[in-house]
Amino acid sequence: MWFRHMIRVRYQETDQMGVVYHANYLNWFEVGRTELIRTMGMSYQQIESQGLLLPVIEVDMSFRKPARYDDLISIYTRIISYNHLRLEFAYEIRRRTENEVHESEYAQRAENGKAGFRLEPEGELLVSGGTRHVWLNRDWKPTRIDKAAPELFELLNRQRRADLDV
Amino acid sequence: MWFRHMIRVRYQETDQMGVVYHANYLNWFEVGRTELIRTMGMSYQQIESQGLLLPVIEVDMSFRKPARYDDLISIYTRIISYNHLRLEFAYEIRRRTENEVHESEYAQRAENGKAGFRLEPEGELLVSGGTRHVWLNRDWKPTRIDKAAPELFELLNRQRRADLDV
Amino acid sequence: MWFRHMIRVRYQETDQMGVVYHANYLNWFEVGRTELIRTMGMSYQQIESQGLLLPVIEVDMSFRKPARYDDLISIYTRIISYNHLRLEFAYEIRRRTENEVHESEYAQRAENGKAGFRLEPEGELLVSGGTRHVWLNRDWKPTRIDKAAPELFELLNRQRRADLDV
Amino acid sequence: MWFRHMIRVRYQETDQMGVVYHANYLNWFEVGRTELIRTMGMSYQQIESQGLLLPVIEVDMSFRKPARYDDLISIYTRIISYNHLRLEFAYEIRRRTENEVHESEYAQRAENGKAGFRLEPEGELLVSGGTRHVWLNRDWKPTRIDKAAPELFELLNRQRRADLDV
Repeated sequence: MWFRHMIRVRYQETDQMGVVYHANYLNWFEVGRTELIRTMGMSYQQIESQGLLLPVIEVDMSFRKPARYDDLISIYTRIISYNHLRLEFAYEIRRRTENEVHESEYAQRAENGKAGFRLEPEGELLVSGGTRHVWLNRDWKPTRIDKAAPELFELLNRQRRADLDV
Repeated sequence: MWFRHMIRVRYQETDQMGVVYHANYLNWFEVGRTELIRTMGMSYQQIESQGLLLPVIEVDMSFRKPARYDDLISIYTRIISYNHLRLEFAYEIRRRTENEVHESEYAQRAENGKAGFRLEPEGELLVSGGTRHVWLNRDWKPTRIDKAAPELFELLNRQRRADLDV
Repeated sequence: MWFRHMIRVRYQETDQMGVVYHANYLNWFEVGRTELIRTMGMSYQQIESQGLLLPVIEVDMSFRKPARYDDLISIYTRIISYNHLRLEFAYEIRRRTENEVHESEYAQRAENGKAGFRLEPEGELLVSGGTRHVWLNRDWKPTRIDKAAPELFELLNRQRRADLDV
Repeated sequence: MWFRHMIRVRYQETDQMGVVYHANYLNWFEVGRTELIRTMGMSYQQIESQGLLLPVIEVDMSFRKPARYDDLISIYTRIISYNHLRLEFAYEIRRRTENEVHESEYAQRAENGKAGFRLEPEGELLVSGGTRHVWLNRDWKPTRIDKAAPELFELLNRQRRADLDV
């Protein structure tokens, strides 16, 4: 199950090649996992205010086609794996046409409450990638979140069960 | 007296107009005042580690010509005014040619020890501007730095006397 | 009449002071005027594809309170003045609470079709500012848009009349 | 053989975790390869003005320790492989102490003319990574640079021979 969040490409995100500068896709990956985590029932801001950090330890990215200024972009995010120390996300950045979006938004409302999650990503694939993270405490030491934040760990378990049920 | 610091324009700083995106000049202003403060004898990092913050409260910028990728840029910075609560900087962003730079660097070494400070900015003027700041403590409350950091206040006084001596 | 567009603060936009880095408000100003122009009936992307550029020539910004990660932000934008050579925008960046937003969005739908435009900005004022622009052609020469893009000039006239009617 | 280029961490590059936001390392990778290419005898700006583009098609990054505001950073870059269609770089981001830098700069001058290139990277390893690129023409079509820019291809050959000679 992929979580979808939509954005518009900002002028500041372009470069003189006339396309989105490649580092910006990492910002969009972060937007994607922020919104996925919020939908699970706890914001990343709340997680940090409990004294937990989730820095990136590895990134991979593959670029097929460039996004351009003002494009409508779907950021698709899903949790690939997790345990009490680590968390791994996959991402797909896809371009939508204005028409697709209107139809799709209509369909989404009809689905009634499943907003955000999708079985299959839609739109033209531009960039795919993954990020791997570790849970740290405020002193930057690895931390077991099943101990440090059991309610957060339970949200991850619940999300996995929901994904398996599909 | 203007303090000079040189940088190269990064690809990431351009936009699809083929020039530097205007918000980046604010980053360069920050680089300029960071290096000016370091030259005065205390790094901004040391200032923050003493519990002082120096956020921006006002900005003005005027754009004459755009900087472009790979340009050699001189950031000129000077302190316009200060007291125990506030600090105000002026900036000029100027483009240098590779030739100018080599000659000028040569001249600089000949000046022997006056590196960094200049009476008159050189190069083609691209952007000018100013930033106004207040001294805050860690709780974001206004703070008198003559009390909270007298040695820093003395560095500001010394810089002003050096400017007046020129 | 202010045009409203809402965004979330991204993690990448914060700095080590724990707040939004000040240069990012210029990116948000750009997002605000992009969405205002789209609502008028022509996207800024379409304008550029006609060979017109609208670079910033002056900026002023005033910072009252900092935005923070994950804040819900309303970008308010309006056209202050324009003629066939120039265009001037004003902006207010305001923070909304999640509750305010839900009520307000509900009210918005009830207003039926006036989505986007508001008589009075709502929410806690964080930053205000203005940008001044000139119309240029592809060779970076000043251009009269009443000649170069009369249908765009007519959209600006229509927007002004709509503002005066309120 | 690694090419070295040094920078200071900018305030804008930090985030609210108090460290450099991870996407910025991609900007530094770009700075590294820009300066490496310049040292080979042709600037990337010159390459683009010949109608060639070198977009990134794959990225991998591994984060060991975070860089912090005002750190002195050595960007180490080298060419891993190339042919007439592709180019692959490796990078290491390392932190230097002010003392190390002074000694090292002194040593560098003594080496007399080998400035920039190093057999072994020095300093505390923070981030490593790689980028893979393809040569495209202005229409974004793959291009053989041995045909389109033979003098550039010869610079790559010469650099490889210099590396093998070490």
